[in-house]
Amino acid sequence: MESLEQMGKKAKAAARVLATAASAEKDKALRAIAAALRENAPAILEANKADLAAGREAGLTESLLDRLALSEGRIEGMAAGVEEVALTADPIGKIDQGSVRPNGLQIYRVRVPLGVIGIIYEARPNVTADAAALCLKAGNAVILRGGKEAIRSNQAIANCMREAVEKAGLPADSIQLVEDTSRASSNALMRLNGYLDVLIPRGGAGLIRAVVENATVPVIETGTGNCHVFVDETADLDMAADIVFNAKTSRPSVCNAMETLLIHEKIAGKALPVIKNRLDEKNVELRGCARTREILGDTVKPATEEDYATEFLDYILAVRVVKDLDEALAHIARYSSGHSECIVTESYENARRFEREVDAAAVYVNASTRFTDGGMFGYGAEIGISTQKLHARGPMGVEQLTSMKYVIHGDGQIRA
Amino acid sequence: MESLEQMGKKAKAAARVLATAASAEKDKALRAIAAALRENAPAILEANKADLAAGREAGLTESLLDRLALSEGRIEGMAAGVEEVALTADPIGKIDQGSVRPNGLQIYRVRVPLGVIGIIYEARPNVTADAAALCLKAGNAVILRGGKEAIRSNQAIANCMREAVEKAGLPADSIQLVEDTSRASSNALMRLNGYLDVLIPRGGAGLIRAVVENATVPVIETGTGNCHVFVDETADLDMAADIVFNAKTSRPSVCNAMETLLIHEKIAGKALPVIKNRLDEKNVELRGCARTREILGDTVKPATEEDYATEFLDYILAVRVVKDLDEALAHIARYSSGHSECIVTESYENARRFEREVDAAAVYVNASTRFTDGGMFGYGAEIGISTQKLHARGPMGVEQLTSMKYVIHGDGQIRA
Repeated sequence: MESLEQMGKKAKAAARVLATAASAEKDKALRAIAAALRENAPAILEANKADLAAGREAGLTESLLDRLALSEGRIEGMAAGVEEVALTADPIGKIDQGSVRPNGLQIYRVRVPLGVIGIIYEARPNVTADAAALCLKAGNAVILRGGKEAIRSNQAIANCMREAVEKAGLPADSIQLVEDTSRASSNALMRLNGYLDVLIPRGGAGLIRAVVENATVPVIETGTGNCHVFVDETADLDMAADIVFNAKTSRPSVCNAMETLLIHEKIAGKALPVIKNRLDEKNVELRGCARTREILGDTVKPATEEDYATEFLDYILAVRVVKDLDEALAHIARYSSGHSECIVTESYENARRFEREVDAAAVYVNASTRFTDGGMFGYGAEIGISTQKLHARGPMGVEQLTSMKYVIHGDGQIRA
Repeated sequence: MESLEQMGKKAKAAARVLATAASAEKDKALRAIAAALRENAPAILEANKADLAAGREAGLTESLLDRLALSEGRIEGMAAGVEEVALTADPIGKIDQGSVRPNGLQIYRVRVPLGVIGIIYEARPNVTADAAALCLKAGNAVILRGGKEAIRSNQAIANCMREAVEKAGLPADSIQLVEDTSRASSNALMRLNGYLDVLIPRGGAGLIRAVVENATVPVIETGTGNCHVFVDETADLDMAADIVFNAKTSRPSVCNAMETLLIHEKIAGKALPVIKNRLDEKNVELRGCARTREILGDTVKPATEEDYATEFLDYILAVRVVKDLDEALAHIARYSSGHSECIVTESYENARRFEREVDAAAVYVNASTRFTDGGMFGYGAEIGISTQKLHARGPMGVEQLTSMKYVIHGDGQIRA
């Protein structure tokens, strides 16, 4: 098996070519990838079947097997996603500022690719195509390291993408898959300094922690979302119930789903029963503070400190009655993972304070946290939601996979 | 002594206040800091004298003692620098994009502080004031961890800054200095996850390596500059000699100084003697390839692989004759630290290829690499030159010490 260092060298060489590739060349390669995915669907499904069989034998849970499973429809979705990336604007080469200095030097700042991007992910083989397409569009070479459960599917997908890219006239090594799925290869990728310009983990909290703990290359953390909705004293009751219901139950397993309801004590008595009623439709388990249980009765489990700190990703909701906006803000400052936070209010002043004081990638007034998503924001496909403040925050699309450089044109200027 | 975790908590609390402080409040605090530095100059100089005495006793080199030494003039320089930061534009609150989505959601992106910034630096006590001022201007709390040689000076500076900030109405903990200068405190700062939003090392290659190797918090690498000047076949000879002389000798100890001269073989015979003549004025030691030594004689030392990889920061220059632009680009791709790279040429095509293909923070055509600097670029004071591609590249001024967030205004929108 190839060493990661060899892969790193090949990626750097490919990245040098991609950095100056014209948009038309990159888009041609993306369309070729989409066609190849469709054409090779039978082989990909064959490989996926083998992964699923091995997964069943290894005792993977049903939800993991579901994430692993491909179908004609899912492959078509991957291909359509790659075509959509081809249609987005190319950020490379954009000049966002420039001036002439008093000494006549012309200085401008131009958007360039990051270079080589590493992606570590888990069982979902569609990430292989999605991530590769976004990286390629932004002129980056990518080294993909998926989970061992999906290795056969990933190989089938990566091979057909590499062939397509090469036929389209760009280096096959623009896309490389790490075939060694041992923990050692994952750790080595995290320390591939000198080759990787950034490493992006896509997966659960455990994966992200492991990357943050072990990586020596620059990392962008994605995904953990301990999201709150604060129902303020002046909230419209129906709106509050709709937003809580949507934020909690429309897709509980994703990072922009709500995990804790904070509710103003002056509205709690009236609002909590209404909200509980809605959540009962989906059998959401509530875990509440003492005041919540006074209002809703002690069939509601008591909430622990840990509940407030937990991203349930399930039909479970922590609830806390707070005495005012300040207490809500303090709770959020303490427990938020900085993903998406919402206030439901009719108070201009409280809306303004909430949006200014809450430190998160996305701060909502009177809308569901579920909108935090590249597509919903109008930025197209994304590689994840960054919850860190460095480089990219919120949905990371093609533009967030770029850097910039300064170009300086002179006529022999020297520094005094 | 306080634990770093306690300091982290205080910094977070201060950061929450700073995040919504008005520009006028921050600028008032900065002017108060400048006044306090001037007023407390005698006490700061006293502390510095003790540092210098201890340093001499510990056998510090003269150049290290020089970096450590303060004077009335240097303190005035620090104060003036802080005032200059007060005069720069406040980036916080700037909205750089926004739109209304088809469902009526208004989404805009607003610039916000990073939060808590850690700075690890070495013997220069002026960094204490410079870094604190830039962080404060951008609404960040800062935890400063300077070298043990400067601890007394740093304490005197930090104490007077804290008092000034508090008197001006902002939290004293906006600026904190780690008083424990053991290696353990430095390592603990690198792993202060949950409190530090970014750690910026300012210092030599050894410090930066240690941070990259050990940090689990996000890091911005600064400073290493293995910069090249490529003198192309068509270069204007006088311009080439001026640029090489300036880039190498105007201040050899800084990161934007030139370290290797690459020269086209068709001009080398004529140009190298002229360039050597200029460099002889400053007794620059040349280390050349075989062809260089044929031209200049074997009083020129042979260059090793290691010489090409070294940031000399001294009156030493590696020289290599290359057969064309491609060989120059390949050399730069191999050895460059991605800081500043220059071509001297009269060829439009080669200028264009060089600026597009060289992967560095600053790419020059016909100007000295010495211009890579926040002030020279017109961006004001800087905290360092980033040589990484994530978040910030090139001079890092106030704006690079910020992040952003999305604010979403709705009327009860939920996701389908």
